[in-house]
Amino acid sequence: MRSMRRRGHPRSARASAEASAGASAEASAGAIGLAEVAGAFDAVVIGAGSAGLTVAVGLAGLGKRVALVESGPIGGDCTNTGCIPSKTLIHQASRHGPLPGPAPAVDGLSAAAAALALVRQRRDELARRERAEIPAIPGIELVEGRARLVAAGRVEITRADGVTRSIDAAHVVVATGAGPRPLVIDGLPAALALTNETLFEQPDLSGHLVVIGGGAIGVEMACAVRRLGARVTVVTRGTSLLSAEDRAATSVLVAELRARGIDVRTSAEAARFEHATSTLVLGDGSRLDAVDQVLVAIGRSPRVGGLGLEHVGVKITSSGIATDHVGRTGVAGLWAVGDVTDLSHTTHGANAYGRRVVQAIAFPMIPIRNRPILVPTAVFSDPELASVGLSLAEIERRWPTAAVRRFEIDLASLDRAHTDDVRHGIMIVIAERLTGRVLRATTVGPHASETIGIVTLAIQRNISLHRLYRLVHPYPTFAAALGKAADEFTRETLPHLPRESAAWLRTRLPKVIRSFR
Amino acid sequence: MRSMRRRGHPRSARASAEASAGASAEASAGAIGLAEVAGAFDAVVIGAGSAGLTVAVGLAGLGKRVALVESGPIGGDCTNTGCIPSKTLIHQASRHGPLPGPAPAVDGLSAAAAALALVRQRRDELARRERAEIPAIPGIELVEGRARLVAAGRVEITRADGVTRSIDAAHVVVATGAGPRPLVIDGLPAALALTNETLFEQPDLSGHLVVIGGGAIGVEMACAVRRLGARVTVVTRGTSLLSAEDRAATSVLVAELRARGIDVRTSAEAARFEHATSTLVLGDGSRLDAVDQVLVAIGRSPRVGGLGLEHVGVKITSSGIATDHVGRTGVAGLWAVGDVTDLSHTTHGANAYGRRVVQAIAFPMIPIRNRPILVPTAVFSDPELASVGLSLAEIERRWPTAAVRRFEIDLASLDRAHTDDVRHGIMIVIAERLTGRVLRATTVGPHASETIGIVTLAIQRNISLHRLYRLVHPYPTFAAALGKAADEFTRETLPHLPRESAAWLRTRLPKVIRSFR
Repeated sequence: MRSMRRRGHPRSARASAEASAGASAEASAGAIGLAEVAGAFDAVVIGAGSAGLTVAVGLAGLGKRVALVESGPIGGDCTNTGCIPSKTLIHQASRHGPLPGPAPAVDGLSAAAAALALVRQRRDELARRERAEIPAIPGIELVEGRARLVAAGRVEITRADGVTRSIDAAHVVVATGAGPRPLVIDGLPAALALTNETLFEQPDLSGHLVVIGGGAIGVEMACAVRRLGARVTVVTRGTSLLSAEDRAATSVLVAELRARGIDVRTSAEAARFEHATSTLVLGDGSRLDAVDQVLVAIGRSPRVGGLGLEHVGVKITSSGIATDHVGRTGVAGLWAVGDVTDLSHTTHGANAYGRRVVQAIAFPMIPIRNRPILVPTAVFSDPELASVGLSLAEIERRWPTAAVRRFEIDLASLDRAHTDDVRHGIMIVIAERLTGRVLRATTVGPHASETIGIVTLAIQRNISLHRLYRLVHPYPTFAAALGKAADEFTRETLPHLPRESAAWLRTRLPKVIRSFR
Repeated sequence: MRSMRRRGHPRSARASAEASAGASAEASAGAIGLAEVAGAFDAVVIGAGSAGLTVAVGLAGLGKRVALVESGPIGGDCTNTGCIPSKTLIHQASRHGPLPGPAPAVDGLSAAAAALALVRQRRDELARRERAEIPAIPGIELVEGRARLVAAGRVEITRADGVTRSIDAAHVVVATGAGPRPLVIDGLPAALALTNETLFEQPDLSGHLVVIGGGAIGVEMACAVRRLGARVTVVTRGTSLLSAEDRAATSVLVAELRARGIDVRTSAEAARFEHATSTLVLGDGSRLDAVDQVLVAIGRSPRVGGLGLEHVGVKITSSGIATDHVGRTGVAGLWAVGDVTDLSHTTHGANAYGRRVVQAIAFPMIPIRNRPILVPTAVFSDPELASVGLSLAEIERRWPTAAVRRFEIDLASLDRAHTDDVRHGIMIVIAERLTGRVLRATTVGPHASETIGIVTLAIQRNISLHRLYRLVHPYPTFAAALGKAADEFTRETLPHLPRESAAWLRTRLPKVIRSFR
């Protein structure tokens, strides 16, 4: 939560919010005036995680009075059970070789135990800092307790000691996030069944960890714990890991995990646990023996219970509170943002949509286009996977196969791979034929979370592969893979313009014509 | 030399060249026809390093017949004495902790000796592959020997055995590169004075290495060798390292090097070497004792001697052959590209300008704008430094101080720094006031060479900080520093539009008006 300007940094929060609103000095001054004549609070923000903090800090910076309601620790999942502890663990693990050797004992601790202790220390440092900084921000009143909507614009807050209090505000923002989706495995003792909320509290993770689920959390933790010396098995119902991602990319990832000694079981599920032998039996009868811990990471459940949302008629699906792309729930003055919605499942996504909510509340006269924000995905596995753009399903829906080109660059063909011992990795670029419009890119390889920004900018500003062909990348880098994709596109296109133009007309023209009817 | 499509990959060379020409199928077909009626060779390319290979492979791919003349190994500095061995050494060093401990002996070898052996192995693998692939490319005849221009369009080649041969061609491309600028230190035995050409041949580098010079080669090797366990002193005449870079960035780098135990001596120079005590005495009388080796890395000298350039009237400066931004020397049919010119001093720069030469030779009717290519700089130091944009001098010349904004983002303020133990790092963004046009950016920090691509694209496509403000970066990453810079710009600009507009008019309008006169 330190960089609240992007995740929401307290020190620069006011500034961020001003900027966030994207409006002129005049509008800003007007908003401050409005706040003074409004009631006690302009907004109640429920939840002090990444999304709620972005909104609360942003609004406060624009002169609004905000009640920030939280029943748990400040910083939400990101600080306490998500990004911060997981990335710290991943970094500690990265200091060890790709294949775990005999675990080096430091002060009698295993590598995993030492790393976990450091993870808790770093997390607690940050949590303490945030706990001190947030209530000190002018305009924010931190209210500890559970919030419940009793009517539109009225929130009842119950403290742990049972004392209740009602707050009225023109705007209520639900940012309660999501929690681990529970899974009951027959016979598995609760003490052995971990989630991201309990994983980092473990004294050690050097035994046999079974990860149930092939999503980002499961894959990241499998990689980190493996490097720290554990035996790791991943059990996923999917046919690959990270099911929303490009199959060519996840295949590389699965191969890399297996090369590092992680036992990846696809199309599999846990059936029962036999306590006597510490054996997890899978649906097909195969047995995972000597299991020490099980990490359940099969997805996230939006925290919508107990909020009284039923009183106000908000639409809730299994993915969370339904909103438009500005966070509007359809009920006047009621907004939702972050993991509790189906719009974003990342801290940076929560931050980006949170800024929109700030702008919409603070400057209602300035229109905001109700369309998705381009939010890249990054999985901090080993190697990293990052992607950005339209979903594969959307590309398939909107473009006939013959209208798109797909480029797969083997990162091992790059000189940087030769110098850096990288044997596997891929960049996939999907682009419209002829025009070179980039629709989606996916990378598995070193620093993928850092290099995906180049493609993000290209997609956002509609920079085609024709243009990216002219971009000079430092040599030798992994980012140069994008240059190779642009080279391939240019080679397939420029010498064959008549063919490519004809193909484009055949596949795209009917759509273009329809759009004018 | 593997990725000749960007540095020039043989397998995709033809394709690359077609693309490189950036021209239509018609033009391409015409060019091939032209080649058939031309003489024995369409072009003589002198030098088979990054620049020469880009041109030779590119032209050959477009159906031209090319004589590629080389008296040394294929691949030039990049493969043999530059990027490939240095980045391999850097990667090997990165496997060790930031502060060298007792050097772990592997098979009786020090960490440095083991790394150097691996460097030579990797380099030789690549060199062998290139040696086999290049002569097999259709259209390329590899001619081993020394080339000399005897007249415009006529090159005389002398083999090692003294046999000579003349080749006539409409185009001669000089791509002979540069070598280490020599430095004589009084009393220093030749065997102890290394350059990038001899460094990687050393059996070991575990003693005390003195690096003379604060440029990219010196800084990279100092960092790598230090991590491998050596005592390292850097002696530079400059007041900081990497003198062309932003001082705020190089200060961070100097501090980091010092924190890693590298003794950095600025405003210093070597006076003499006392052999009896292995002491290097500096100009101010201070003494560096127990010196084992000295790496001379004070700059590069273009290889212009013995080429007969005096016969044809080419302009040569101390930085090399003078050319325009398309590689034209002013003498019809004579081109120069790569390190032998003053246009580029990197492999990726040589590649980018080499592509232009290919286009200019193959498609002379298609005009090319004679202006600089935007080439980022990357120094693979530890941490890395990367920069892109107008030079600081050019910004100062063209913009009054009040017309630019400078943003310095402390990378340690990013959450990724908190999780990844990064205590120091900086991103500097210099932008035009009000418009947010990005003029230059510099980063010192993890993966700087990979993240600089986002700013490179922004500068190239004229994407302002107003636009970059909307770019969503994955959390947590170092690339997010650019988002923070954009936030700061927006905060300083949007709420103060009248003031900012007035400042812009005051500082920029006179220039704009002048441009219309």
